[in-house]
Amino acid sequence: MSTDIDFYFDFVSPYAYLASSRIERLAAAHGRKVRWKPVLMTVLSKAAGTQLTPFVPMKWQYVQHDVARSARLAGIPFHWPPGFPKLLLAPGRAMMWLASTHGEDKAVAFARTCLTAWFGDGVDIEDKEVLAGIAARLGVERAALLAALEDDSVKAAFKQASEDAIAQGVFGVPYMIVDGEAFWGFDRFDQLEQALRQPAAQFAPNAGG
Amino acid sequence: MSTDIDFYFDFVSPYAYLASSRIERLAAAHGRKVRWKPVLMTVLSKAAGTQLTPFVPMKWQYVQHDVARSARLAGIPFHWPPGFPKLLLAPGRAMMWLASTHGEDKAVAFARTCLTAWFGDGVDIEDKEVLAGIAARLGVERAALLAALEDDSVKAAFKQASEDAIAQGVFGVPYMIVDGEAFWGFDRFDQLEQALRQPAAQFAPNAGG
Repeated sequence: MSTDIDFYFDFVSPYAYLASSRIERLAAAHGRKVRWKPVLMTVLSKAAGTQLTPFVPMKWQYVQHDVARSARLAGIPFHWPPGFPKLLLAPGRAMMWLASTHGEDKAVAFARTCLTAWFGDGVDIEDKEVLAGIAARLGVERAALLAALEDDSVKAAFKQASEDAIAQGVFGVPYMIVDGEAFWGFDRFDQLEQALRQPAAQFAPNAGG
Repeated sequence: MSTDIDFYFDFVSPYAYLASSRIERLAAAHGRKVRWKPVLMTVLSKAAGTQLTPFVPMKWQYVQHDVARSARLAGIPFHWPPGFPKLLLAPGRAMMWLASTHGEDKAVAFARTCLTAWFGDGVDIEDKEVLAGIAARLGVERAALLAALEDDSVKAAFKQASEDAIAQGVFGVPYMIVDGEAFWGFDRFDQLEQALRQPAAQFAPNAGG
């Protein structure tokens, strides 16, 4: 079994954004590596038979407050992006292409910049030119990224990523699997940290670990 | 606005059980009183348009582990009761009748004993004779409690309790409202505690506070 922390996220998820800003620090403190796995909540929720929170009015009213409160208490800059919620396909596709062509580190740096741009500064990260600009600042050729976003094999790879997550039992984000044990939510970081302190594989929904 | 902590729970909810074992201590530490409000998750989830977790297989597989882990880390005795999940009407009805006839303190003592019996010892708390026994040990006449459980006005009052909760924006349990601010989940006790330390009314979904 890998000792890496699998970190499933959707660029559109505010709780995943909060988790994304802490996961590397947490992993590093315990000598672990993070495998960033972008997925689509629309695909996961369909497979799980759940509803996306923004479409459940009573829950959504609460969650809007809870996200802002959780960000504030954690000291993480956060604003609701204009046009939220929004289906974000381009950043996940771009990240997967970057990982396979420019390496994991570049892909993760790209993803973190996208998340901060979206939830920190309200930048539209479904805009391909925006993504090309972010990539360019990381030394990636704009034209190559723009071409990748139109590539059917890149689209298929990102689609497959959600299917692979579902096969691991992932039904929501952020979702972390470490040593075969699953943790769902930014609010499980304390339990995740406790597990990293005292590693002991205990549970993996469908992880086949 | 009341300074009490409104504590919404369903006897069938394991997370509400975990919360129930800590809420009084937390409130007392900050000079607050708890108002225990039994509700039915089936009614709340129908109003909110959500599904009960045990009927969402992917989520349920995770939650079964998460509940046990959360209980263990919090040091709270916990076992899945035989026949879980189960519609529990009798304890909520009994509690509401006790509150109106024997006072809040007796009703809360009854509720806490029920929750511990159900999740700690696997006792069937939908069994009316069991409830009569619990009530009797608290000095309540068995026959009076058994009669109350058949009383249409008691049934109506418990039904109304869920409607009242929905009117406050409650869509899940445990759900705490303090100084107009809402907290959902046992995993929000740290945020609830922080709010109690630095009281400042900030948000109330439909609370009209």
